Amino acid sequence: MQIYADNAATTQMSRTAIAAMLPYMEEIYGNPSSLYTIGQKAREAIEDARERMANCLGCTAREITFTSGGSEADNQAILSAAALGAKRGKKHIISTAFEHHAVLHTLKKLEKNGFEVTLLDVHSNGIVAAEQVAEAIREDTCLVSVMYANNEIGTIQPIAEIGAVCREKGVLFHTDAVQAAGHLPIDVERQYIDLLSLSAHKFHGPKGCGALYSRRGTPLISVIEGGAQERGKRAGTENVPAIMGMTAALEEACRSMEAHTAHLTALRDRLIHGLEKIPYSALNGDGTQRLPGNVNFCFEGIEGESLLLLLDDKGISVSSGSACTSGSLDPSHVLLAIGRPHEVAHGSLRMTLGEDTTEEQVDYMIEAVTEVVDYLRHMSPFWRDLEIGKRPHVFSK
Amino acid sequence: MQIYADNAATTQMSRTAIAAMLPYMEEIYGNPSSLYTIGQKAREAIEDARERMANCLGCTAREITFTSGGSEADNQAILSAAALGAKRGKKHIISTAFEHHAVLHTLKKLEKNGFEVTLLDVHSNGIVAAEQVAEAIREDTCLVSVMYANNEIGTIQPIAEIGAVCREKGVLFHTDAVQAAGHLPIDVERQYIDLLSLSAHKFHGPKGCGALYSRRGTPLISVIEGGAQERGKRAGTENVPAIMGMTAALEEACRSMEAHTAHLTALRDRLIHGLEKIPYSALNGDGTQRLPGNVNFCFEGIEGESLLLLLDDKGISVSSGSACTSGSLDPSHVLLAIGRPHEVAHGSLRMTLGEDTTEEQVDYMIEAVTEVVDYLRHMSPFWRDLEIGKRPHVFSK
Repeated sequence: MQIYADNAATTQMSRTAIAAMLPYMEEIYGNPSSLYTIGQKAREAIEDARERMANCLGCTAREITFTSGGSEADNQAILSAAALGAKRGKKHIISTAFEHHAVLHTLKKLEKNGFEVTLLDVHSNGIVAAEQVAEAIREDTCLVSVMYANNEIGTIQPIAEIGAVCREKGVLFHTDAVQAAGHLPIDVERQYIDLLSLSAHKFHGPKGCGALYSRRGTPLISVIEGGAQERGKRAGTENVPAIMGMTAALEEACRSMEAHTAHLTALRDRLIHGLEKIPYSALNGDGTQRLPGNVNFCFEGIEGESLLLLLDDKGISVSSGSACTSGSLDPSHVLLAIGRPHEVAHGSLRMTLGEDTTEEQVDYMIEAVTEVVDYLRHMSPFWRDLEIGKRPHVFSK
Repeated sequence: MQIYADNAATTQMSRTAIAAMLPYMEEIYGNPSSLYTIGQKAREAIEDARERMANCLGCTAREITFTSGGSEADNQAILSAAALGAKRGKKHIISTAFEHHAVLHTLKKLEKNGFEVTLLDVHSNGIVAAEQVAEAIREDTCLVSVMYANNEIGTIQPIAEIGAVCREKGVLFHTDAVQAAGHLPIDVERQYIDLLSLSAHKFHGPKGCGALYSRRGTPLISVIEGGAQERGKRAGTENVPAIMGMTAALEEACRSMEAHTAHLTALRDRLIHGLEKIPYSALNGDGTQRLPGNVNFCFEGIEGESLLLLLDDKGISVSSGSACTSGSLDPSHVLLAIGRPHEVAHGSLRMTLGEDTTEEQVDYMIEAVTEVVDYLRHMSPFWRDLEIGKRPHVFSK
């Protein structure tokens, strides 16, 4: 059996998205900045796409800027808010300890340029409370950046509440919605969001394409300088095919969201209940306030990497931590942020289900993970130390 | 007849490039950072692509970084060289007055941060001499950035000579090869190039993808912060399909370069000779030291925009200036740089032929342009002033 259960890392493109791209790869290849017919056809297509993207997010077309992906959108959102803040003498930014590195590393860069960054602690269930944000806001706070759903443990943040706090205090609110877009409802008005980043390949759209929503009156600075594309907010010839693919994918995801959520939630909970039976294991992040397809477990005495390689042998594609940090030997900063000790933060397994995952596949995964965990523990001297009581267990049986 | 003659703005994707992308859009969709099979297949593919790209440029795979396009590559090259310069107390950069805005605007940003920029004058034939570079280099010069071929007038710069001057003086040399890659030979060793930017959609590859060559020992700084992709030099999930498409397109272009150059040069010269017969017109840029497919004319008494719209009616897609600046009403900074006065710099027409352009199409274009120029001049009060001697002509008859 072949099971792809790493949909948080990337998704397979949908037929709809590919079909939306092909005409712009093959025939309508004009540069949208060109004035002749084939250029203007490309222009009309992306402006129509912008309108449709806006409809999915509850904003206007002018508030959408197309980018090369979620990371660029995150960078641009934060750098723009910081530039605006600096102009007004406000150089304090609030974020959380378990953001994506596209946010954290941009904040680090700003710290080198005289900004002060407060990273909020994350509760052990993987959720940041709006009250924490309210308490952290200062006179000189120019931006609050809190992700909509975490990329590793899938926990959903109280975005509308955080947005309301920010709006009341007159502070810009950015949310990295890379994991949420297409999977959770977004309405930038009701959720008081000023800046929102998304990435197409997380909802069955193409890689290399994303979007940044920026509320009217929130000026953006370019991350990439050059031509006047995207009304001066993002240089470089527009990636027309990818924009068309992303738009089709987001529309499809939003249309089917309710049905997919029901399907995925049922499978997710089935998988969680199955894996909870493995001794000395624990679900990371809240059991219900999480993305419908996200399951993330720690297993004591196990290296995540060995686990995923053995599961790959069984045809199951899953990850340990996020794909973006998979080259790193450090334990997940997300798991550390929710208080997991180093020794178990190394042993996490993320399974992110897709719309076409079946019950049969979930049962196969439960069986496979149970077997592999058992196998690895029997090989592990560290586990023997735990078993004979040389070391204390972290989780109960 | 439908004629696409704006290949400098963008090109139609080749069947080869599309075919190279599709498997990675459809089946091998894994995230290259993922450790399981489908991720590793994507990883192997892009590492193989990196090797093949390197072969096309005469460098090693480790010296290639994939980007979202030419603009990002230009930005990153210049910002990286500047950061390195700043560390060494060298904050002077040399470039030219007719670079692409991806270069010029990045330099402007650096000027705000304490860098000094010397923009070399361009000779009236659209070429910068290596001697000019040699004379401008100072003790504190950290970078010379000169484009390989100009995007409007197609003139080819003496890159190897400029490179040799820079190497001798120990100054980094960057070339924006966005118009040259796939069309002119590149050998970064023989041409003494330290940094080189290219863009896939200029040689029948996909939009939204480019590459930056950086010589070993030239550290790059990220334009986009986040994950550790591209060995920490470019965050964001790799655009696997586009990378595969770009690589296939560049290989194809390099394989066919000799034949294409002969074909295009013949057509280009035929078009130039045909258009030279139009009274009060002039070719912009050197007649032979130019891209094989590039023809750029000024016609006195004509607005470039009207010209291109009427040609569009006749099925001919051409441009006035570059696509990147087509929203702007300012005259081309390139034409001003080669000394064209404002009133004719507004009336330029760029025709950039492609490998599938035919002799018949060229003859049709000559006929159409001649007719449209004549028609527009008869409507123009400005032209009447010229004809009755109220204003002096710029070009001879």
